[in-house]
Amino acid sequence: MSLQMDAAELMEFLDDIFPQVRGDFEVDDLSANEISMRLCVQEKHLRPGGTVSGPSMFALADCAAYAMVLARIGREALAVTTNCSIDFMRKPSAGADLIGTCKLLKLGRSLAVCDILIHSVDQDAPVARANMTYSIPPKC
Amino acid sequence: MSLQMDAAELMEFLDDIFPQVRGDFEVDDLSANEISMRLCVQEKHLRPGGTVSGPSMFALADCAAYAMVLARIGREALAVTTNCSIDFMRKPSAGADLIGTCKLLKLGRSLAVCDILIHSVDQDAPVARANMTYSIPPKC
Amino acid sequence: MSLQMDAAELMEFLDDIFPQVRGDFEVDDLSANEISMRLCVQEKHLRPGGTVSGPSMFALADCAAYAMVLARIGREALAVTTNCSIDFMRKPSAGADLIGTCKLLKLGRSLAVCDILIHSVDQDAPVARANMTYSIPPKC
Amino acid sequence: MSLQMDAAELMEFLDDIFPQVRGDFEVDDLSANEISMRLCVQEKHLRPGGTVSGPSMFALADCAAYAMVLARIGREALAVTTNCSIDFMRKPSAGADLIGTCKLLKLGRSLAVCDILIHSVDQDAPVARANMTYSIPPKC
Repeated sequence: MSLQMDAAELMEFLDDIFPQVRGDFEVDDLSANEISMRLCVQEKHLRPGGTVSGPSMFALADCAAYAMVLARIGREALAVTTNCSIDFMRKPSAGADLIGTCKLLKLGRSLAVCDILIHSVDQDAPVARANMTYSIPPKC
Repeated sequence: MSLQMDAAELMEFLDDIFPQVRGDFEVDDLSANEISMRLCVQEKHLRPGGTVSGPSMFALADCAAYAMVLARIGREALAVTTNCSIDFMRKPSAGADLIGTCKLLKLGRSLAVCDILIHSVDQDAPVARANMTYSIPPKC
Repeated sequence: MSLQMDAAELMEFLDDIFPQVRGDFEVDDLSANEISMRLCVQEKHLRPGGTVSGPSMFALADCAAYAMVLARIGREALAVTTNCSIDFMRKPSAGADLIGTCKLLKLGRSLAVCDILIHSVDQDAPVARANMTYSIPPKC
Repeated sequence: MSLQMDAAELMEFLDDIFPQVRGDFEVDDLSANEISMRLCVQEKHLRPGGTVSGPSMFALADCAAYAMVLARIGREALAVTTNCSIDFMRKPSAGADLIGTCKLLKLGRSLAVCDILIHSVDQDAPVARANMTYSIPPKC
Protein backbone atom coordinates (compact mmCIF):
# COMPACT_ATOMS: atom_id res chain seq x y z
CA MET A 1 0.00 0.00 0.00
CA SER A 2 3.01 2.32 -0.11
CA LEU A 3 4.36 4.55 -2.85
CA GLN A 4 7.41 3.38 -4.82
CA MET A 5 8.19 6.92 -6.01
CA ASP A 6 7.47 10.39 -4.64
CA ALA A 7 6.16 13.26 -6.78
CA ALA A 8 9.60 14.51 -7.79
CA GLU A 9 10.87 11.04 -8.76
CA LEU A 10 7.67 10.44 -10.69
CA MET A 11 8.01 13.68 -12.70
CA GLU A 12 11.66 12.93 -13.43
CA PHE A 13 10.73 9.47 -14.65
CA LEU A 14 7.86 10.76 -16.85
CA ASP A 15 10.09 13.46 -18.36
CA ASP A 16 12.64 10.79 -19.08
CA ILE A 17 10.33 8.35 -20.87
CA PHE A 18 8.00 10.89 -22.54
CA PRO A 19 10.39 13.65 -23.62
CA GLN A 20 7.91 14.86 -26.27
CA VAL A 21 5.46 16.07 -23.61
CA ARG A 22 8.06 17.50 -21.21
CA GLY A 23 6.69 20.70 -19.70
CA ASP A 24 3.08 19.75 -20.37
CA PHE A 25 2.32 17.99 -17.08
CA GLU A 26 3.11 18.58 -13.40
CA VAL A 27 2.32 16.51 -10.32
CA ASP A 28 0.53 18.88 -7.90
CA ASP A 29 -0.14 16.30 -5.20
CA LEU A 30 0.38 12.58 -4.60
CA SER A 31 -0.79 10.17 -1.93
CA ALA A 32 -1.18 6.39 -1.76
CA ASN A 33 -4.50 6.34 -3.65
CA GLU A 34 -4.80 9.74 -5.31
CA ILE A 35 -2.83 12.02 -7.59
CA SER A 36 -3.46 15.56 -8.84
CA MET A 37 -1.92 16.11 -12.26
CA ARG A 38 -1.82 19.52 -13.92
CA LEU A 39 -1.95 20.14 -17.65
CA CYS A 40 -0.02 23.38 -18.22
CA VAL A 41 -2.33 24.61 -20.97
CA GLN A 42 -0.47 26.02 -23.96
CA GLU A 43 -1.34 27.16 -27.48
CA LYS A 44 -0.95 23.61 -28.85
CA HIS A 45 -3.68 22.31 -26.49
CA LEU A 46 -6.35 24.76 -27.67
CA ARG A 47 -9.27 24.51 -30.05
CA PRO A 48 -10.79 27.41 -31.92
CA GLY A 49 -13.60 28.82 -29.83
CA GLY A 50 -11.37 29.41 -26.86
CA THR A 51 -11.25 25.99 -25.29
CA VAL A 52 -8.97 23.01 -24.65
CA SER A 53 -9.15 20.14 -27.16
CA GLY A 54 -10.64 16.74 -26.36
CA PRO A 55 -7.37 14.88 -27.12
CA SER A 56 -5.58 17.16 -24.62
CA MET A 57 -8.09 16.24 -21.90
CA PHE A 58 -7.75 12.57 -22.82
CA ALA A 59 -3.95 12.92 -22.55
CA LEU A 60 -4.28 14.48 -19.08
CA ALA A 61 -6.52 11.65 -17.84
CA ASP A 62 -4.15 9.06 -19.31
CA CYS A 63 -1.06 10.69 -17.84
CA ALA A 64 -2.65 11.03 -14.38
CA ALA A 65 -3.74 7.39 -14.29
CA TYR A 66 -0.42 6.15 -15.65
CA ALA A 67 1.51 8.15 -13.06
CA MET A 68 -0.75 6.90 -10.25
CA VAL A 69 -0.23 3.28 -11.24
CA LEU A 70 3.55 3.71 -11.71
CA ALA A 71 3.88 5.47 -8.35
CA ARG A 72 2.54 2.30 -6.79
CA ILE A 73 4.10 -0.47 -8.87
CA GLY A 74 7.49 1.16 -9.48
CA ARG A 75 9.48 2.31 -12.47
CA GLU A 76 10.75 -1.07 -13.57
CA ALA A 77 7.19 -2.28 -14.12
CA LEU A 78 5.16 -1.96 -17.30
CA ALA A 79 1.58 -0.80 -17.65
CA VAL A 80 -0.41 -0.20 -20.82
CA THR A 81 -3.77 1.57 -21.19
CA THR A 82 -6.38 -0.92 -22.31
CA ASN A 83 -9.62 1.04 -21.93
CA CYS A 84 -10.84 4.56 -21.35
CA SER A 85 -14.31 6.03 -21.21
CA ILE A 86 -14.49 9.80 -21.05
CA ASP A 87 -17.41 12.24 -20.74
CA PHE A 88 -16.96 15.83 -21.82
CA MET A 89 -19.36 17.86 -19.71
CA ARG A 90 -18.44 21.54 -19.90
CA LYS A 91 -16.18 23.80 -21.94
CA PRO A 92 -12.75 24.23 -20.35
CA SER A 93 -11.32 27.75 -20.14
CA ALA A 94 -8.69 28.45 -22.78
CA GLY A 95 -6.52 30.50 -20.46
CA ALA A 96 -6.51 28.24 -17.40
CA ASP A 97 -4.60 25.08 -16.52
CA LEU A 98 -6.53 21.85 -16.10
CA ILE A 99 -6.25 19.65 -12.98
CA GLY A 100 -6.95 15.93 -13.22
CA THR A 101 -7.74 14.38 -9.85
CA CYS A 102 -7.23 10.65 -10.16
CA LYS A 103 -8.36 8.03 -7.65
CA LEU A 104 -6.98 4.51 -7.74
CA LEU A 105 -10.00 2.23 -7.33
CA LYS A 106 -8.28 -1.10 -7.95
CA LEU A 107 -4.69 -2.26 -8.17
CA GLY A 108 -4.84 -5.97 -8.94
CA ARG A 109 -2.12 -8.30 -10.14
CA SER A 110 -3.00 -7.76 -13.78
CA LEU A 111 -5.45 -4.83 -13.96
CA ALA A 112 -5.60 -1.37 -12.40
CA VAL A 113 -8.69 0.89 -12.54
CA CYS A 114 -8.75 4.66 -11.96
CA ASP A 115 -11.40 7.38 -11.93
CA ILE A 116 -10.39 10.88 -13.03
CA LEU A 117 -12.24 14.17 -12.57
CA ILE A 118 -10.96 17.15 -14.59
CA HIS A 119 -11.42 20.82 -13.62
CA SER A 120 -10.31 24.10 -15.12
CA VAL A 121 -8.53 25.89 -12.27
CA ASP A 122 -10.91 28.83 -12.62
CA GLN A 123 -14.17 26.82 -12.58
CA ASP A 124 -15.90 24.90 -9.76
CA ALA A 125 -17.85 22.44 -11.90
CA PRO A 126 -15.86 19.61 -13.53
CA VAL A 127 -15.25 19.86 -17.28
CA ALA A 128 -14.76 16.12 -17.85
CA ARG A 129 -14.70 12.75 -16.14
CA ALA A 130 -12.89 9.62 -17.22
CA ASN A 131 -12.13 6.08 -16.14
CA MET A 132 -9.00 4.27 -17.24
CA THR A 133 -7.98 0.62 -17.10
CA TYR A 134 -4.32 -0.38 -17.24
CA SER A 135 -3.03 -3.85 -17.90
CA ILE A 136 0.04 -4.78 -15.88
CA PRO A 137 2.03 -7.52 -17.62
CA PRO A 138 3.52 -10.23 -15.39
CA LYS A 139 7.15 -9.59 -14.44
CA CYS A 140 9.63 -11.79 -16.24
CA MET B 1 -30.42 23.30 -7.22
CA SER B 2 -33.22 21.93 -5.06
CA LEU B 3 -34.85 18.50 -4.95
CA GLN B 4 -38.28 18.07 -6.56
CA MET B 5 -38.98 14.87 -4.57
CA ASP B 6 -37.76 13.52 -1.24
CA ALA B 7 -36.61 9.92 -0.73
CA ALA B 8 -40.09 8.61 0.14
CA GLU B 9 -41.78 10.30 -2.85
CA LEU B 10 -39.02 9.01 -5.10
CA MET B 11 -39.44 5.38 -3.95
CA GLU B 12 -43.22 5.63 -4.34
CA PHE B 13 -42.79 6.96 -7.86
CA LEU B 14 -40.25 4.26 -8.83
CA ASP B 15 -42.49 1.49 -7.40
CA ASP B 16 -45.34 2.94 -9.42
CA ILE B 17 -43.58 3.07 -12.80
CA PHE B 18 -41.36 -0.04 -12.38
CA PRO B 19 -43.68 -2.51 -10.63
CA GLN B 20 -41.60 -5.45 -11.89
CA VAL B 21 -38.63 -4.48 -9.68
CA ARG B 22 -40.66 -3.45 -6.62
CA GLY B 23 -38.80 -4.58 -3.51
CA ASP B 24 -35.46 -4.72 -5.27
CA PHE B 25 -34.28 -1.18 -4.56
CA GLU B 26 -34.36 1.22 -1.59
CA VAL B 27 -33.21 4.83 -1.27
CA ASP B 28 -30.85 4.92 1.73
CA ASP B 29 -29.93 8.59 1.46
CA LEU B 30 -30.63 11.54 -0.81
CA SER B 31 -29.21 15.04 -1.08
CA ALA B 32 -29.08 17.65 -3.85
CA ASN B 33 -26.16 16.03 -5.68
CA GLU B 34 -25.88 12.50 -4.30
CA ILE B 35 -28.04 9.44 -3.72
CA SER B 36 -27.36 6.10 -2.03
CA MET B 37 -29.42 3.33 -3.57
CA ARG B 38 -29.55 -0.17 -2.10
CA LEU B 39 -30.02 -3.37 -4.08
CA CYS B 40 -31.76 -5.80 -1.71
CA VAL B 41 -29.87 -8.83 -3.01
CA GLN B 42 -32.10 -11.86 -3.59
CA GLU B 43 -31.77 -15.28 -5.19
CA LYS B 44 -32.67 -13.88 -8.63
CA HIS B 45 -29.69 -11.48 -8.53
CA LEU B 46 -27.10 -14.21 -7.95
CA ARG B 47 -24.65 -16.02 -10.19
CA PRO B 48 -23.25 -19.47 -9.52
CA GLY B 49 -20.00 -19.11 -7.59
CA GLY B 50 -21.64 -17.09 -4.85
CA THR B 51 -21.77 -13.65 -6.36
CA VAL B 52 -24.13 -11.02 -7.73
CA SER B 53 -24.62 -10.97 -11.52
CA GLY B 54 -23.29 -8.22 -13.79
CA PRO B 55 -26.78 -7.29 -15.07
CA SER B 56 -27.92 -6.82 -11.45
CA MET B 57 -25.05 -4.39 -10.82
CA PHE B 58 -25.85 -2.59 -14.06
CA ALA B 59 -29.50 -2.34 -12.96
CA LEU B 60 -28.43 -0.82 -9.61
CA ALA B 61 -26.24 1.80 -11.30
CA ASP B 62 -29.04 2.63 -13.76
CA CYS B 63 -31.69 2.87 -11.04
CA ALA B 64 -29.48 5.08 -8.83
CA ALA B 65 -28.69 7.49 -11.67
CA TYR B 66 -32.28 7.57 -12.90
CA ALA B 67 -33.57 8.32 -9.39
CA MET B 68 -30.95 11.05 -8.88
CA VAL B 69 -31.93 12.76 -12.12
CA LEU B 70 -35.68 12.45 -11.44
CA ALA B 71 -35.28 13.77 -7.90
CA ARG B 72 -33.94 16.95 -9.47
CA ILE B 73 -36.04 17.37 -12.59
CA GLY B 74 -39.34 16.10 -11.19
CA ARG B 75 -41.73 13.28 -11.95
CA GLU B 76 -43.44 14.82 -14.92
CA ALA B 77 -40.13 14.93 -16.80
CA LEU B 78 -38.69 12.20 -18.97
CA ALA B 79 -35.14 10.90 -18.96
CA VAL B 80 -33.71 7.99 -20.93
CA THR B 81 -30.36 6.28 -20.45
CA THR B 82 -28.20 6.90 -23.50
CA ASN B 83 -24.78 5.60 -22.36
CA CYS B 84 -23.21 3.58 -19.59
CA SER B 85 -19.67 2.45 -19.03
CA ILE B 86 -19.15 0.03 -16.16
CA ASP B 87 -16.04 -1.60 -14.67
CA PHE B 88 -16.38 -4.76 -12.63
CA MET B 89 -13.47 -4.74 -10.19
CA ARG B 90 -14.12 -7.26 -7.42
CA LYS B 91 -16.51 -10.09 -6.66
CA PRO B 92 -19.56 -8.93 -4.71
CA SER B 93 -20.65 -11.01 -1.71
CA ALA B 94 -23.64 -13.23 -2.46
CA GLY B 95 -25.20 -12.71 0.95
CA ALA B 96 -24.88 -8.94 1.27
CA ASP B 97 -26.83 -6.03 -0.17
CA LEU B 98 -25.12 -3.69 -2.61
CA ILE B 99 -25.03 0.09 -2.17
CA GLY B 100 -24.68 2.34 -5.21
CA THR B 101 -23.43 5.82 -4.31
CA CYS B 102 -24.28 8.11 -7.19
CA LYS B 103 -22.93 11.63 -7.69
CA LEU B 104 -24.60 14.02 -10.12
CA LEU B 105 -21.74 15.61 -12.08
CA LYS B 106 -23.80 17.50 -14.63
CA LEU B 107 -27.45 18.40 -15.01
CA GLY B 108 -27.74 20.28 -18.28
CA ARG B 109 -30.80 21.16 -20.30
CA SER B 110 -30.53 18.05 -22.42
CA LEU B 111 -27.92 15.76 -20.81
CA ALA B 112 -27.23 14.59 -17.25
CA VAL B 113 -24.05 12.73 -16.23
CA CYS B 114 -23.59 10.64 -13.07
CA ASP B 115 -20.75 8.65 -11.49
CA ILE B 116 -21.67 5.58 -9.44
CA LEU B 117 -19.50 3.59 -7.04
CA ILE B 118 -20.88 0.20 -5.91
CA HIS B 119 -19.96 -1.57 -2.63
CA SER B 120 -21.06 -4.78 -0.99
CA VAL B 121 -22.17 -3.72 2.49
CA ASP B 122 -19.65 -6.13 4.03
CA GLN B 123 -16.60 -5.01 2.00
CA ASP B 124 -14.56 -1.78 2.10
CA ALA B 125 -13.22 -1.88 -1.45
CA PRO B 126 -15.69 -1.04 -4.26
CA VAL B 127 -16.94 -3.94 -6.40
CA ALA B 128 -17.80 -1.83 -9.44
CA ARG B 129 -17.84 1.69 -10.81
CA ALA B 130 -20.06 3.12 -13.53
CA ASN B 131 -20.89 6.33 -15.31
CA MET B 132 -24.30 6.98 -16.82
CA THR B 133 -25.57 9.60 -19.25
CA TYR B 134 -29.25 10.46 -19.43
CA SER B 135 -30.92 12.38 -22.20
CA ILE B 136 -33.65 14.75 -21.03
CA PRO B 137 -36.12 15.44 -23.83
CA PRO B 138 -37.39 19.02 -24.14
CA LYS B 139 -40.73 19.58 -22.40
CA CYS B 140 -43.65 19.91 -24.77
CA MET C 1 -8.38 -20.04 -34.43
CA SER C 2 -10.89 -22.86 -34.15
CA LEU C 3 -14.02 -23.28 -32.04
CA GLN C 4 -13.82 -25.45 -28.93
CA MET C 5 -17.63 -25.88 -28.83
CA ASP C 6 -20.37 -25.73 -31.43
CA ALA C 7 -23.65 -23.84 -30.94
CA ALA C 8 -25.48 -26.78 -29.33
CA GLU C 9 -22.65 -27.54 -26.89
CA LEU C 10 -22.42 -23.88 -26.02
CA MET C 11 -26.16 -23.60 -25.22
CA GLU C 12 -26.02 -26.76 -23.14
CA PHE C 13 -23.07 -25.38 -21.20
CA LEU C 14 -24.73 -21.97 -20.63
CA ASP C 15 -27.98 -23.62 -19.47
CA ASP C 16 -25.93 -25.69 -17.10
CA ILE C 17 -24.00 -22.87 -15.46
CA PHE C 18 -26.71 -20.18 -15.61
CA PRO C 19 -29.90 -22.11 -14.81
CA GLN C 20 -31.66 -18.92 -13.68
CA VAL C 21 -31.73 -17.52 -17.24
CA ARG C 22 -32.53 -20.82 -18.99
CA GLY C 23 -34.92 -20.13 -21.85
CA ASP C 24 -33.91 -16.48 -22.13
CA PHE C 25 -31.11 -16.86 -24.68
CA GLU C 26 -30.54 -18.85 -27.89
CA VAL C 27 -27.52 -19.13 -30.17
CA ASP C 28 -28.78 -18.31 -33.68
CA ASP C 29 -25.42 -18.55 -35.41
CA LEU C 30 -21.77 -19.16 -34.52
CA SER C 31 -18.51 -18.90 -36.43
CA ALA C 32 -14.87 -18.49 -35.43
CA ASN C 33 -15.13 -14.72 -34.86
CA GLU C 34 -18.84 -13.97 -34.63
CA ILE C 35 -21.91 -15.11 -32.74
CA SER C 36 -25.60 -14.17 -33.04
CA MET C 37 -27.37 -14.47 -29.70
CA ARG C 38 -31.13 -14.07 -29.35
CA LEU C 39 -32.92 -12.70 -26.31
CA CYS C 40 -36.33 -14.39 -26.28
CA VAL C 41 -38.17 -11.32 -25.02
CA GLN C 42 -40.65 -12.07 -22.24
CA GLU C 43 -42.78 -10.07 -19.80
CA LYS C 44 -39.91 -9.91 -17.29
CA HIS C 45 -37.67 -8.12 -19.83
CA LEU C 46 -40.09 -5.27 -20.47
CA ARG C 47 -40.35 -1.70 -19.24
CA PRO C 48 -43.56 0.31 -19.07
CA GLY C 49 -43.95 2.21 -22.33
CA GLY C 50 -43.76 -0.94 -24.43
CA THR C 51 -40.04 -1.50 -24.58
CA VAL C 52 -37.24 -3.80 -23.41
CA SER C 53 -35.34 -2.70 -20.29
CA GLY C 54 -31.73 -1.50 -20.32
CA PRO C 55 -30.54 -4.27 -17.96
CA SER C 56 -32.04 -6.86 -20.35
CA MET C 57 -30.06 -5.39 -23.27
CA PHE C 58 -26.94 -5.32 -21.11
CA ALA C 59 -27.54 -8.98 -20.21
CA LEU C 60 -27.85 -9.89 -23.91
CA ALA C 61 -24.57 -8.13 -24.77
CA ASP C 62 -22.83 -9.80 -21.83
CA CYS C 63 -24.17 -13.26 -22.68
CA ALA C 64 -23.23 -12.94 -26.36
CA ALA C 65 -19.67 -11.86 -25.57
CA TYR C 66 -19.25 -14.48 -22.86
CA ALA C 67 -20.46 -17.24 -25.18
CA MET C 68 -18.18 -16.02 -27.99
CA VAL C 69 -15.13 -16.10 -25.71
CA LEU C 70 -16.04 -19.50 -24.22
CA ALA C 71 -16.63 -20.99 -27.66
CA ARG C 72 -13.00 -20.18 -28.42
CA ILE C 73 -11.23 -20.88 -25.13
CA GLY C 74 -13.26 -23.89 -24.05
CA ARG C 75 -15.50 -24.77 -21.16
CA GLU C 76 -12.83 -25.53 -18.61
CA ALA C 77 -11.54 -21.97 -18.89
CA LEU C 78 -12.69 -19.00 -16.86
CA ALA C 79 -13.55 -15.54 -18.12
CA VAL C 80 -14.95 -12.61 -16.17
CA THR C 81 -16.42 -9.38 -17.53
CA THR C 82 -14.20 -6.47 -16.55
CA ASN C 83 -15.62 -3.60 -18.60
CA CYS C 84 -18.65 -2.74 -20.70
CA SER C 85 -19.65 0.43 -22.45
CA ILE C 86 -23.13 0.47 -23.93
CA ASP C 87 -25.06 3.06 -25.98
CA PHE C 88 -28.83 2.91 -26.08
CA MET C 89 -29.82 4.41 -29.42
CA ARG C 90 -33.42 3.53 -30.19
CA LYS C 91 -36.43 2.05 -28.42
CA PRO C 92 -36.63 -1.73 -28.86
CA SER C 93 -40.00 -3.23 -29.77
CA ALA C 94 -41.76 -4.81 -26.79
CA GLY C 95 -43.15 -7.70 -28.83
CA ALA C 96 -40.03 -8.70 -30.77
CA ASP C 97 -36.94 -10.71 -29.84
CA LEU C 98 -33.58 -8.97 -29.77
CA ILE C 99 -30.55 -10.23 -31.67
CA GLY C 100 -27.05 -9.41 -30.44
CA THR C 101 -24.42 -9.77 -33.14
CA CYS C 102 -21.06 -10.06 -31.45
CA LYS C 103 -17.66 -9.79 -33.16
CA LEU C 104 -14.51 -10.98 -31.44
CA LEU C 105 -11.95 -8.21 -32.01
CA LYS C 106 -9.19 -9.54 -29.79
CA LEU C 107 -8.49 -12.81 -28.04
CA GLY C 108 -5.24 -12.34 -26.16
CA ARG C 109 -3.71 -14.43 -23.42
CA SER C 110 -5.31 -12.38 -20.68
CA LEU C 111 -7.89 -10.08 -22.31
CA ALA C 112 -10.64 -10.55 -24.89
CA VAL C 113 -12.51 -7.64 -26.53
CA CYS C 114 -15.87 -7.88 -28.35
CA ASP C 115 -18.16 -5.45 -30.17
CA ILE C 116 -21.91 -6.12 -30.03
CA LEU C 117 -24.68 -4.61 -32.15
CA ILE C 118 -28.26 -5.20 -30.96
CA HIS C 119 -31.35 -5.18 -33.21
CA SER C 120 -35.05 -5.79 -32.62
CA VAL C 121 -35.94 -8.48 -35.15
CA ASP C 122 -38.62 -6.20 -36.62
CA GLN C 123 -36.41 -3.10 -37.07
CA ASP C 124 -33.51 -2.38 -39.45
CA ALA C 125 -31.73 0.23 -37.37
CA PRO C 126 -29.78 -1.02 -34.34
CA VAL C 127 -31.31 -0.33 -30.90
CA ALA C 128 -28.02 -0.50 -28.99
CA ARG C 129 -24.29 -1.06 -29.32
CA ALA C 130 -21.86 -2.33 -26.72
CA ASN C 131 -18.25 -3.32 -26.24
CA MET C 132 -17.20 -5.86 -23.64
CA THR C 133 -13.81 -6.77 -22.20
CA TYR C 134 -13.25 -10.13 -20.54
CA SER C 135 -10.32 -11.04 -18.34
CA ILE C 136 -9.07 -14.59 -18.83
CA PRO C 137 -7.23 -15.82 -15.73
CA PRO C 138 -4.10 -17.91 -16.32
CA LYS C 139 -4.72 -21.66 -16.23
CA CYS C 140 -3.44 -23.36 -13.09
CA MET D 1 -29.79 10.39 -45.91
CA SER D 2 -27.58 12.37 -48.24
CA LEU D 3 -24.19 13.98 -47.73
CA GLN D 4 -24.00 17.77 -47.28
CA MET D 5 -20.28 17.82 -48.20
CA ASP D 6 -18.04 15.57 -50.27
CA ALA D 7 -14.58 14.41 -49.13
CA ALA D 8 -12.75 17.41 -50.59
CA GLU D 9 -15.14 19.96 -49.08
CA LEU D 10 -14.92 18.17 -45.75
CA MET D 11 -11.10 18.27 -45.70
CA GLU D 12 -11.11 21.94 -46.67
CA PHE D 13 -13.54 22.69 -43.86
CA LEU D 14 -11.54 20.72 -41.26
CA ASP D 15 -8.28 22.41 -42.31
CA ASP D 16 -10.03 25.72 -41.95
CA ILE D 17 -11.42 25.20 -38.45
CA PHE D 18 -8.56 23.08 -37.03
CA PRO D 19 -5.44 24.72 -38.52
CA GLN D 20 -3.26 23.27 -35.74
CA VAL D 21 -3.73 19.71 -37.02
CA ARG D 22 -3.51 20.55 -40.74
CA GLY D 23 -1.61 17.77 -42.49
CA ASP D 24 -2.38 15.21 -39.78
CA PHE D 25 -5.59 13.79 -41.24
CA GLU D 26 -6.88 12.79 -44.69
CA VAL D 27 -10.27 11.53 -45.82
CA ASP D 28 -9.59 8.28 -47.70
CA ASP D 29 -13.22 7.43 -48.41
CA LEU D 30 -16.68 8.78 -47.65
CA SER D 31 -20.18 7.44 -48.12
CA ALA D 32 -23.55 8.20 -46.51
CA ASN D 33 -22.90 6.11 -43.41
CA GLU D 34 -19.16 5.46 -43.35
CA ILE D 35 -15.90 7.38 -43.52
CA SER D 36 -12.27 6.25 -43.66
CA MET D 37 -9.95 8.79 -42.04
CA ARG D 38 -6.17 8.48 -42.20
CA LEU D 39 -3.76 9.68 -39.52
CA CYS D 40 -0.55 10.55 -41.35
CA VAL D 41 1.72 9.30 -38.59
CA GLN D 42 4.59 11.66 -37.80
CA GLU D 43 7.26 11.99 -35.12
CA LYS D 44 4.90 13.95 -32.84
CA HIS D 45 2.41 11.05 -32.77
CA LEU D 46 4.91 8.49 -31.51
CA ARG D 47 5.67 7.02 -28.11
CA PRO D 48 9.00 5.55 -27.08
CA GLY D 49 8.95 1.84 -27.82
CA GLY D 50 8.12 2.37 -31.48
CA THR D 51 4.40 2.93 -31.35
CA VAL D 52 1.68 5.56 -31.80
CA SER D 53 0.46 7.29 -28.62
CA GLY D 54 -2.99 6.75 -27.12
CA PRO D 55 -3.96 10.44 -27.42
CA SER D 56 -3.12 10.27 -31.17
CA MET D 57 -5.47 7.29 -31.61
CA PHE D 58 -8.15 9.09 -29.61
CA ALA D 59 -7.69 12.15 -31.85
CA LEU D 60 -8.11 9.99 -34.97
CA ALA D 61 -11.34 8.44 -33.66
CA ASP D 62 -12.66 11.87 -32.68
CA CYS D 63 -11.76 13.43 -36.03
CA ALA D 64 -13.32 10.57 -38.01
CA ALA D 65 -16.59 10.72 -36.07
CA TYR D 66 -16.73 14.51 -36.18
CA ALA D 67 -16.16 14.52 -39.95
CA MET D 68 -18.83 11.82 -40.45
CA VAL D 69 -21.41 13.79 -38.50
CA LEU D 70 -20.52 17.09 -40.21
CA ALA D 71 -20.66 15.48 -43.64
CA ARG D 72 -24.29 14.69 -42.89
CA ILE D 73 -25.51 17.73 -40.97
CA GLY D 74 -23.55 20.38 -42.86
CA ARG D 75 -20.91 22.93 -42.04
CA GLU D 76 -23.15 25.55 -40.47
CA ALA D 77 -24.16 23.07 -37.78
CA LEU D 78 -22.46 22.49 -34.46
CA ALA D 79 -21.57 19.19 -32.87
CA VAL D 80 -19.61 18.58 -29.68
CA THR D 81 -18.14 15.29 -28.43
CA THR D 82 -19.92 14.25 -25.25
CA ASN D 83 -18.66 10.70 -24.70
CA CYS D 84 -16.00 8.33 -25.97
CA SER D 85 -15.08 4.83 -24.91
CA ILE D 86 -11.92 3.44 -26.46
CA ASP D 87 -10.19 0.04 -26.22
CA PHE D 88 -6.51 -0.23 -27.06
CA MET D 89 -6.00 -3.79 -28.29
CA ARG D 90 -2.66 -4.06 -30.08
CA LYS D 91 0.47 -2.01 -30.56
CA PRO D 92 0.29 0.18 -33.68
CA SER D 93 3.31 0.24 -35.98
CA ALA D 94 5.46 3.36 -35.55
CA GLY D 95 6.21 3.63 -39.25
CA ALA D 96 2.74 3.14 -40.69
CA ASP D 97 -0.29 5.41 -41.04
CA LEU D 98 -3.43 4.58 -39.10
CA ILE D 99 -6.86 4.25 -40.74
CA GLY D 100 -10.01 4.88 -38.71
CA THR D 101 -13.09 3.33 -40.27
CA CYS D 102 -16.12 5.05 -38.79
CA LYS D 103 -19.72 3.87 -39.09
CA LEU D 104 -22.61 6.19 -38.30
CA LEU D 105 -25.00 4.13 -36.17
CA LYS D 106 -27.43 6.88 -35.22
CA LEU D 107 -28.07 10.41 -36.38
CA GLY D 108 -30.87 11.75 -34.24
CA ARG D 109 -32.06 15.30 -33.75
CA SER D 110 -29.85 15.84 -30.73
CA LEU D 111 -27.42 12.89 -30.54
CA ALA D 112 -25.22 11.06 -33.06
CA VAL D 113 -23.44 7.77 -32.30
CA CYS D 114 -20.50 6.32 -34.24
CA ASP D 115 -18.36 3.17 -34.02
CA ILE D 116 -14.71 3.41 -35.10
CA LEU D 117 -12.24 0.61 -35.84
CA ILE D 118 -8.57 1.61 -36.14
CA HIS D 119 -5.94 -0.31 -38.13
CA SER D 120 -2.25 0.22 -38.85
CA VAL D 121 -2.03 0.07 -42.64
CA ASP D 122 0.52 -2.75 -42.37
CA GLN D 123 -1.48 -4.97 -39.97
CA ASP D 124 -4.68 -6.99 -40.46
CA ALA D 125 -5.87 -7.05 -36.87
CA PRO D 126 -7.34 -3.81 -35.49
CA VAL D 127 -5.19 -1.84 -33.02
CA ALA D 128 -8.09 -0.04 -31.33
CA ARG D 129 -11.85 0.37 -31.32
CA ALA D 130 -13.88 3.34 -30.13
CA ASN D 131 -17.42 4.65 -29.91
CA MET D 132 -18.19 8.35 -29.91
CA THR D 133 -21.33 10.30 -29.07
CA TYR D 134 -21.86 13.81 -30.38
CA SER D 135 -24.42 16.26 -29.11
CA ILE D 136 -26.01 18.38 -31.83
CA PRO D 137 -27.34 21.65 -30.41
CA PRO D 138 -30.70 22.85 -31.77
CA LYS D 139 -30.36 25.39 -34.59
CA CYS D 140 -31.20 28.94 -33.59
